[in-house]
Amino acid sequence: MKIKIPATSANLGPGFDCLGLALGLYNEVTLKPSHYQSISLRGEGEDNVKLKKNNMFISIFYEIYQELVGKKDFFRFEFHNHIPFSRGLGSSSAVIIGAIASAYEMAGVKASKEMILNKAIVYETHPDNIAPAVHGGFTSSVVEGGKVKTLRKALPSTIKAVMVIPDRPMSTAHSRTLLPKSYPMKDVVYNVSHASMLSAAFFSENWEYVRVASKECMHEYRRMKQLKELFDVRDVAYASGALMSTLSGSGSSFFNLAREEEAQKVASALKTRFEMFRIEVLDFDNDGFCIIKS
Amino acid sequence: MKIKIPATSANLGPGFDCLGLALGLYNEVTLKPSHYQSISLRGEGEDNVKLKKNNMFISIFYEIYQELVGKKDFFRFEFHNHIPFSRGLGSSSAVIIGAIASAYEMAGVKASKEMILNKAIVYETHPDNIAPAVHGGFTSSVVEGGKVKTLRKALPSTIKAVMVIPDRPMSTAHSRTLLPKSYPMKDVVYNVSHASMLSAAFFSENWEYVRVASKECMHEYRRMKQLKELFDVRDVAYASGALMSTLSGSGSSFFNLAREEEAQKVASALKTRFEMFRIEVLDFDNDGFCIIKS
Repeated sequence: MKIKIPATSANLGPGFDCLGLALGLYNEVTLKPSHYQSISLRGEGEDNVKLKKNNMFISIFYEIYQELVGKKDFFRFEFHNHIPFSRGLGSSSAVIIGAIASAYEMAGVKASKEMILNKAIVYETHPDNIAPAVHGGFTSSVVEGGKVKTLRKALPSTIKAVMVIPDRPMSTAHSRTLLPKSYPMKDVVYNVSHASMLSAAFFSENWEYVRVASKECMHEYRRMKQLKELFDVRDVAYASGALMSTLSGSGSSFFNLAREEEAQKVASALKTRFEMFRIEVLDFDNDGFCIIKS
Repeated sequence: MKIKIPATSANLGPGFDCLGLALGLYNEVTLKPSHYQSISLRGEGEDNVKLKKNNMFISIFYEIYQELVGKKDFFRFEFHNHIPFSRGLGSSSAVIIGAIASAYEMAGVKASKEMILNKAIVYETHPDNIAPAVHGGFTSSVVEGGKVKTLRKALPSTIKAVMVIPDRPMSTAHSRTLLPKSYPMKDVVYNVSHASMLSAAFFSENWEYVRVASKECMHEYRRMKQLKELFDVRDVAYASGALMSTLSGSGSSFFNLAREEEAQKVASALKTRFEMFRIEVLDFDNDGFCIIKS
């Protein structure tokens, strides 16, 4: 079997730990029953020896697989990664979702998307990357009693993501230490009101509202200060026609939303100014992970 | 001229200071040019002498009218109020919106809904009641640079509001002093995620999600403790089929959402248990204030 899992952009604007969306950029993993365990790695991370020795996909896969079938079988894992690591593009969530869904598939146990999501929340405590990796589209999620609930909106092909992927990562763990432990009432109201409107804007496809609705005051400024070029990325994106421009996850990538007809213009303006960064115009993914049977 | 302004339910679940909706319950005010100022009052507040002497509608009306025409003319004001005062049903917002819209109308100056809303935010600093009073429907609002921006969703006739209106008020001012000045990160994420999903649920008419999405942790519990019967109101509402059950504004009323076919059952269960409270099944208003020319 082969599984494809999309990249995701989470922490979307004011939607801290809850709003996310899926991008048309995929990691692919092929699994084959084998007499011994083996691994091959192409694409992102192919030069990283640690990924072969201590592979999170493989550990989660075996944990779930053994839970389901009660014994350890061997497999060959062939990774073809397109999602950059540690750039706020949901590479860890893609690994977690891919490993869980593959384990169910190889064990021959049927699992709904909801079941997979509820397994995944054990490995990643915030639902904003795993939910779009499972469902595709724009997702609004809550966690209640350890279970994830998600409402999803398919995104039209008339809008595109213009991703800015810097040449260096920002550590999520360090990034979180930059945040305060509590927020004053006015900041809470600011994020609650903007996140509600961002959700409303995506669900009603009202792109004129996403620029104002995507403003937030909980984390972006503190995180963007670690990579100051990101302030210029936003200015250039808006000046060249982006509808919305926010940090992707906890960085270092930047997510820009643009109308189909403006996307190349936004991308060109960003490429000209930020030669050292990778700029990609991407479609949105509306399916979430998908299993291709062999 | 006559103006009708709807009651509103705000602070909707986790949507503190931002989410609201308009109810099919109206205050009506008739204005006629006159040689001297006079006032008549029917319905809610008709026994309140203070309302005749120090009337907020009349003061705001003259303030705006004089600003527009540069002089003071006299009018007869006939109030027919159906919105109970100080019960979390937006009676103040109805007064503010009614006064501003009437002043523009009597001055013969055209004003868009947006203009009226931006005048109103000067008198009431939170947009969650004034926005639905102006636009009708379910509204998600933000305030940016002193201006209100609102996204609105019309509500179908297949859902109804079952309002529980207690026999005593809760003071908004006192109610606010019960709230903390700051909130820990986990509470912020709770309200941000639930408010985003509540907005998504209303915009996608996904009523199965409103119960979980309407949970919140910023203010309801603290306020409901002032009128402990409200905890039972919620239990009875859910047990009899309500989709969602939350404090209306800062209380004392409770807003219950029900499918058309369940609304009477929810209302009957509440009436049987809470004889001292007023229970009303209401349609939603999708128009906001409306001016009836004479």
